[in-house]
Amino acid sequence: MPELRKDPVIGRWVIIATERGKRPSDFGKEEEPHVGGICPFCSGHENTTPPEILAYRETGTEPNTPGWRVRVVSNKFPALRVEGDLTRTGEGIYDKMTGVGAHEVVIETPDHTKTLADLEVKQVAEVLSACCERIDDLRKDPRIQYVLVFKNHGKRAGASLDHTHTQLIATPIVPNLVREEMHGSQSYFEYKERCIFCDIIRQELGDTRRLVADNDEFIAIEPYAARFPFETWILPKKHRTAYEKVRTEGIELLAEILRETLRRINVALARPPYNIVFHTGPLATPELEFFHWHLEIMPRLTHVAGFERGSGFYINPTPPEEAAAFLRAVEVD
Amino acid sequence: MPELRKDPVIGRWVIIATERGKRPSDFGKEEEPHVGGICPFCSGHENTTPPEILAYRETGTEPNTPGWRVRVVSNKFPALRVEGDLTRTGEGIYDKMTGVGAHEVVIETPDHTKTLADLEVKQVAEVLSACCERIDDLRKDPRIQYVLVFKNHGKRAGASLDHTHTQLIATPIVPNLVREEMHGSQSYFEYKERCIFCDIIRQELGDTRRLVADNDEFIAIEPYAARFPFETWILPKKHRTAYEKVRTEGIELLAEILRETLRRINVALARPPYNIVFHTGPLATPELEFFHWHLEIMPRLTHVAGFERGSGFYINPTPPEEAAAFLRAVEVD
Repeated sequence: MPELRKDPVIGRWVIIATERGKRPSDFGKEEEPHVGGICPFCSGHENTTPPEILAYRETGTEPNTPGWRVRVVSNKFPALRVEGDLTRTGEGIYDKMTGVGAHEVVIETPDHTKTLADLEVKQVAEVLSACCERIDDLRKDPRIQYVLVFKNHGKRAGASLDHTHTQLIATPIVPNLVREEMHGSQSYFEYKERCIFCDIIRQELGDTRRLVADNDEFIAIEPYAARFPFETWILPKKHRTAYEKVRTEGIELLAEILRETLRRINVALARPPYNIVFHTGPLATPELEFFHWHLEIMPRLTHVAGFERGSGFYINPTPPEEAAAFLRAVEVD
Repeated sequence: MPELRKDPVIGRWVIIATERGKRPSDFGKEEEPHVGGICPFCSGHENTTPPEILAYRETGTEPNTPGWRVRVVSNKFPALRVEGDLTRTGEGIYDKMTGVGAHEVVIETPDHTKTLADLEVKQVAEVLSACCERIDDLRKDPRIQYVLVFKNHGKRAGASLDHTHTQLIATPIVPNLVREEMHGSQSYFEYKERCIFCDIIRQELGDTRRLVADNDEFIAIEPYAARFPFETWILPKKHRTAYEKVRTEGIELLAEILRETLRRINVALARPPYNIVFHTGPLATPELEFFHWHLEIMPRLTHVAGFERGSGFYINPTPPEEAAAFLRAVEVD
């Protein structure tokens, strides 16, 4: 059973894999190579993954057989596990918790050769919709407080399999970064009686120097204090706390702007590795007037080094205004 | 002039290089290659660096000529600059500050072929001592609130030059991570009336499962909630807030345990890339009963991916108890 351990000084939680610890000789090797050269995420290899939890498939096809367009399965090497009780205990001055949660993989297409940006808008919308459905289902488990949706694209961004996929990790606590965002946006609301994210959208639409794209429902911007070159955020123009509601509120427009943004990044930066993280409200909170969901896209172009690790600051060598201009200028279809 | 910009949601500061922005085509290239194959940090090339700020050298040798053992110079491509006023201004809803500070390089040895772990204890002590002296000097600048000492070893850890060196970045604000440590340890002190770091040392000396090494003055441990495999902390056994005081209080013993720890890591993990960060108290604070300086050594063995970037959590595949056992077991001289 994995363990959640709390840093006693700053309260940061860490997931410690207690059962199958990586030994010194394991580092440096490639992670989880395809068994016998078979990609477990390709159509026809459904029996090499855990059974499917959700799939969008052609009518008349059976679960765990070909015919799917998007398929969700449990991660074969989960960071957190569904089984077991959630118990908190002490260990001298330290605090820990059983590693209860869930870890799922959204296989975005049966086609091994495509990336998310290569899919049609409709297919991207189905990937985004599958994430919504999984959040709504995981919400039923009272042990789970948050579902973090994220994507690692490319080895340098942490992807261990090439076949394009998104992941969900459901956690028994609200992650630190989300708590910081909740806390910060709440303080702002108390002072201004306005949502900080709504204010950001207003300023960026007026200023336009950091604007990458927008449509009727969404905006893509380089954030003012971008940590990384070409870091890009996508936000709904209307105030919404819960990402999963987008399923019935303009999901095609979200798919469109996400696909366009990724395609702009691909052209400008020669298909870089990247991460996407979805920041939505905690499962237990209804709509909050101060918190506004958003996606953060982070191309992996620079190394995070000692200064960043020691300070929590970042050094960004590309001003977001310049990055936005580059992204706007490239031609995409 | 670089700019410090504040994330309006969580208050995280980012250093934005506003003058010489990296363009899309700059990424992927190797950083700052040695001009004409000459290493600017080697003995005999003193004129290729900015003039020296401090050096420990053989008596009778001139500044900026050979004869030095440790040499401190300004970084040729500084993240923050000494020149200019510290001014804070707004930009609509956003906040920024001029990028005033300092960025220095401690060249640890004139010998291009050595790493920090390869140096003699006396030489390591001189490197550590140079950092103390620089902190004490930078303290005189009233614009500076903090000096972060850090080391990037190996390309994957962010080192752009091979020749072994440590860096100092002096900042006009206390970095977020240090503030979080101050805040957390202060809360603990208010509740327990004990220093959390002193409590950690007591528990680890009693338990010994996470102990890597210790001597009369210092302890090296794998922290209970280690973020990374083989993350190792070094702390003074006596309660001290300010790192720079170590110069007159057992610096040779610190050099000894740091060198031993790095050599253990080198043997166990085949000389991995790593970062070291020094967490000391802010310049303005005298000794604080709740804050205790420490070094954090972080080998770069795993990729930080979307989950970590999105949550602020970490997933550590090696339990610190196992890592400590491996490090204790290897033979070093």
